[in-house]
Amino acid sequence: MKTIYLDNAATTPVDEEVIKEMDKYHKEIYGNASSVHHKGQEAKRAMEEARSIIAKSIGADDEEIYFTSGGTEANNFALKGVAFARKDIGNHIIVSKIDHDCVLNSAKWLEKQGFKVTFLNVDKEGFVDLDELEKLITYKTILVSIIHGNNEIGTIQDLKKIYVICKKHHVYFHTDACQSYTKTELSADMADLITLNAHKIHGPKGVGALYIKKGTKIEPLLNGGGHEKGLRSGTENIPGIVGFAKSVKLASKKHVANMIKLRDYFIEQILKIPETQLNGPTGDNRLCNNINVSFRFIEGESIGSYLDAKGICTSTGSACSSHSLEPSHVIMALENNPERAHGSLRFTISRNTTKEELDFTIEEISKTVKKLRNISPLGKFMKKIL
Amino acid sequence: MKTIYLDNAATTPVDEEVIKEMDKYHKEIYGNASSVHHKGQEAKRAMEEARSIIAKSIGADDEEIYFTSGGTEANNFALKGVAFARKDIGNHIIVSKIDHDCVLNSAKWLEKQGFKVTFLNVDKEGFVDLDELEKLITYKTILVSIIHGNNEIGTIQDLKKIYVICKKHHVYFHTDACQSYTKTELSADMADLITLNAHKIHGPKGVGALYIKKGTKIEPLLNGGGHEKGLRSGTENIPGIVGFAKSVKLASKKHVANMIKLRDYFIEQILKIPETQLNGPTGDNRLCNNINVSFRFIEGESIGSYLDAKGICTSTGSACSSHSLEPSHVIMALENNPERAHGSLRFTISRNTTKEELDFTIEEISKTVKKLRNISPLGKFMKKIL
Repeated sequence: MKTIYLDNAATTPVDEEVIKEMDKYHKEIYGNASSVHHKGQEAKRAMEEARSIIAKSIGADDEEIYFTSGGTEANNFALKGVAFARKDIGNHIIVSKIDHDCVLNSAKWLEKQGFKVTFLNVDKEGFVDLDELEKLITYKTILVSIIHGNNEIGTIQDLKKIYVICKKHHVYFHTDACQSYTKTELSADMADLITLNAHKIHGPKGVGALYIKKGTKIEPLLNGGGHEKGLRSGTENIPGIVGFAKSVKLASKKHVANMIKLRDYFIEQILKIPETQLNGPTGDNRLCNNINVSFRFIEGESIGSYLDAKGICTSTGSACSSHSLEPSHVIMALENNPERAHGSLRFTISRNTTKEELDFTIEEISKTVKKLRNISPLGKFMKKIL
Repeated sequence: MKTIYLDNAATTPVDEEVIKEMDKYHKEIYGNASSVHHKGQEAKRAMEEARSIIAKSIGADDEEIYFTSGGTEANNFALKGVAFARKDIGNHIIVSKIDHDCVLNSAKWLEKQGFKVTFLNVDKEGFVDLDELEKLITYKTILVSIIHGNNEIGTIQDLKKIYVICKKHHVYFHTDACQSYTKTELSADMADLITLNAHKIHGPKGVGALYIKKGTKIEPLLNGGGHEKGLRSGTENIPGIVGFAKSVKLASKKHVANMIKLRDYFIEQILKIPETQLNGPTGDNRLCNNINVSFRFIEGESIGSYLDAKGICTSTGSACSSHSLEPSHVIMALENNPERAHGSLRFTISRNTTKEELDFTIEEISKTVKKLRNISPLGKFMKKIL
């Protein structure tokens, strides 16, 4: 059975060219980048070249990029690092209700350490309310963290406007750009701290980065030998870092344009199924690879498992949240509707996705939804009265 | 110029078989192990097989192994995680003076958060004083952390005896086994928490594990989506994890026996150079791959850079501590002698090292030491009076 992989927001297959590049750094240029001898220094040079590629991709200076083990670490580092570094100034943090679990749970951990956290609302398409944000900021607020492109419903926030508000009140602004990086406009002048990662863009798992604007006060999350200018210790994962940079180089606007076309085609087709609803916005403020739909009267999980039996990989909520049976906190934040949350299914395409794959998927979804609604007591009832 | 790589305690080249194994997981079995569809589940199965291999290697249960991004993260996790989880019981932590920077600096960070840290002395060969340890434990002590095989001088501590003392006083015992893993006896009944990593044993960089004995109270360092039973969030680095397990499978007692022979041969030869002194013990309580020697009247760094010019990679102290110009804290802890610390050079062999490489190295060292002592004012002076 052929796999149709429509779960690229969870992770992506690694590009062949990235693998080839990494192999060289496992086998030949294997030194520890902190070693002063030639094997160390050649590894260090490769790391600095990679850093430069990633810095340039968001218009940052090389020394503003700090490598981490991925998005989760970078988000933990940003929130906890800033909180501990600025605790003498204030103890208030604002995060959006639709941020990733690693931001929300870092914030909740900080609450246990005495910080105050406010969870910012979003509208029905997932956009944060800028007026509310400004009202929530107090003289004790030290950090605002809002996800750039939402991992579940694809909403892209207006970082520039958020940053203007934060700067006006001397509050740091961090954004988790794991899903948006290389997929929409993103630059170092949109935030003080930006989380990036590799495995969502056909790079390797286990590597990411935190952009930290020069002058930003932050404490390390990982203490140790003083790597990354003392802010992130641990032997540098050179093959991962080099592979990360390669994946950034391979990303292109052409891929994005193509994904937008496929996304909009898929949305159009899927909304032809009765009693379906798109979660998140349409157009430019939606991630190019994200489609999220709620099917009334049935559960997204049931559709997902039928599709999986046909080789089609989709997802309900984020991969991470599969550890819990709770309805998606993101879709609940839109209008507090558990049926909509439980009935949702996410499709995330990549530059490898074809129209044929999407056509086959639409066909299978139509059949599955019909079948499930026929066996669902609620579905049968609603069919009679509608 | 051929490289003679004698810095295997800093990092090792990745084994060809490990690379081959990882490639499959980048390209084919690329799913997110938290995804419920078939691509996720095949990745999850691979991860659980890898976990099982690593658990078995130290006689642990599978569910006692938690994957991390490496040794530094695992050590930070162990120290900070236990400290926060047990802070209601007490606030005192004991670490040895010769632990790795990531243990020492995690402890120092905890001091800033209100914990008390005591730094345990070692004798002239680097062994901790067990009587002193027992005396230092108070009713407020919650954790003892002592490195198993020291990364600089190769001293292997008697974990069993340390653990008896800790258990007697209901204190958790953590050991950093990054350097000793697969190189000497190590098992889950020797500690409550054990740090392991891959890149010191011909596995990939960017992956490690923390063994956490069932029932041990610990908080996560990385909050998020609830991976690793809620104790270590972040998309699992499946290629890294699978590569880690493969490197464990490839390690063998035969390699260790061979390294011991080469180590002892090298020590014998190098001590023929006048005014040299071995740092660390001889025999079974020394890591099979470690040789560390102090050369009087000259600096280890100068010898290292001469050797590097001949293609020979060695190290002064740990790779990590190359970020600082301070004398090695490990050798200073032996007898507080800065000359001995500054004059030291570390050679760490691997299963790939040959006798021919070591013979060539000895020859080059002899020449270099002679040359350097001739140009060193102290060397010239001492030659006259000795």
